[in-house]
Amino acid sequence: MTDKMLAFGRDILAAQPFSTMMGARLEKFDNDSVELVLDLRDDHKQQHGFAHGGVVSYLADNALTYAGGSVLGDCLTLEFKINYVRPAIGEGLIARARVTASGRQQAVCHCDIFAVKSGVEKLCATAQGTIWRVDPAP
Amino acid sequence: MTDKMLAFGRDILAAQPFSTMMGARLEKFDNDSVELVLDLRDDHKQQHGFAHGGVVSYLADNALTYAGGSVLGDCLTLEFKINYVRPAIGEGLIARARVTASGRQQAVCHCDIFAVKSGVEKLCATAQGTIWRVDPAP
Amino acid sequence: MTDKMLAFGRDILAAQPFSTMMGARLEKFDNDSVELVLDLRDDHKQQHGFAHGGVVSYLADNALTYAGGSVLGDCLTLEFKINYVRPAIGEGLIARARVTASGRQQAVCHCDIFAVKSGVEKLCATAQGTIWRVDPAP
Amino acid sequence: MTDKMLAFGRDILAAQPFSTMMGARLEKFDNDSVELVLDLRDDHKQQHGFAHGGVVSYLADNALTYAGGSVLGDCLTLEFKINYVRPAIGEGLIARARVTASGRQQAVCHCDIFAVKSGVEKLCATAQGTIWRVDPAP
Repeated sequence: MTDKMLAFGRDILAAQPFSTMMGARLEKFDNDSVELVLDLRDDHKQQHGFAHGGVVSYLADNALTYAGGSVLGDCLTLEFKINYVRPAIGEGLIARARVTASGRQQAVCHCDIFAVKSGVEKLCATAQGTIWRVDPAP
Repeated sequence: MTDKMLAFGRDILAAQPFSTMMGARLEKFDNDSVELVLDLRDDHKQQHGFAHGGVVSYLADNALTYAGGSVLGDCLTLEFKINYVRPAIGEGLIARARVTASGRQQAVCHCDIFAVKSGVEKLCATAQGTIWRVDPAP
Repeated sequence: MTDKMLAFGRDILAAQPFSTMMGARLEKFDNDSVELVLDLRDDHKQQHGFAHGGVVSYLADNALTYAGGSVLGDCLTLEFKINYVRPAIGEGLIARARVTASGRQQAVCHCDIFAVKSGVEKLCATAQGTIWRVDPAP
Repeated sequence: MTDKMLAFGRDILAAQPFSTMMGARLEKFDNDSVELVLDLRDDHKQQHGFAHGGVVSYLADNALTYAGGSVLGDCLTLEFKINYVRPAIGEGLIARARVTASGRQQAVCHCDIFAVKSGVEKLCATAQGTIWRVDPAP
């Protein structure tokens, strides 16, 4: 089941031209957790050499939507909020999202985004968002 | 003065490899308003052919920071919140940001993001965020 | 029509025991704007003599819901975000909310909260929220 | 140490006339967690008999500030975001807040608010906020 969900999730990611350009990879996708990762390239950076806030928020947005989708099926992100807590420096980023509460129609999800430097993870942002089922709830 | 600010803002944008890859252009940058625009390319899209939420949130994040920077100088985005209100379809996106309130240390800014289709603008997202002065306030 | 809406809105406010205890009054309620006001009492304050953040956020929450209700009918607040920009000092508070975008099912609304001191209004908080129609959209 | 912090936290709560009127009690206050509780009274309710959103957001705001204060000392809440996930029904509410990330100047905190009905806790809201040190960081 988990393998099937992961394969399904990767198909969706592959169907997003923006995610392909960004180089994001889905490493986990089940009802308990989502993990979306990115190897940091130079063209992900801002003027100080950190990952651009837009790269971090892209991961948050996408991981939150996957988390919501794990319980709702076809869905969209209504909104989210993100706090940047530390510069995103290192060789990669990992976004881990989870469902905090879900009903028939909506899921409220959280996502932590970690920068990985020399193999050590440090939290660089944290997000909270609302995911909505596209079709009316059964 | 406005021309100088705009040139300065464009230099910063050009120094962000991610913004260069995204193809964003700064069209306005003064104390009253910021306008950051993007011609939509296929690699900005998600699986349904709309601009990816991450593209829209990148514009919001960056335009909010410019708005805060117009009154604070060197600054960073502490956090922001974005609501997606309509699929982002069309030939381009325009993010317009403004300062709602500012003190010595912080600015609270708003940003509206419009999708432009056949020359007609429609609001597709709206954001609110907190920008912080990097150096201690004078 | 406007008078009928205002009377209807006041009936709802009167049916909220918490709003009655808080002493909130609805001064405007139509499709263009909502105005919810409060005369500041000592028991609205925190330890420094300002209005408590919870009083300001109550006004934001309620005014945002009214704004959404003006276009959606029976509705509830899914979520909101509030920035405090200045201590809320004075003889009263005014929350002004408006609909920024609305569809069949949701409305995204903004609210500014002003403190009134010696008759002069100063912005003390600003909020953005998502309001949802209780019944399925027609 | 924990006892001293709790006593200190309770003194602050007692110095907030609004918290006294609301009937909030601080049950835990240390670097690991904050617990702010409320016995639900009729005058905490809205027109459907649930706790008013403003009551829930008051608890979130205050518990987030306590969490930030546990690591920053004298502080204020810059902003927060709250999602309502279930009607708040029952005999009481419990807000539990924690520090997710903190630096010299700011703390990003999360808070879950539970409704307690017949002794059973159910999550009714979840919040994320930014707390700021009042004095310049050492």
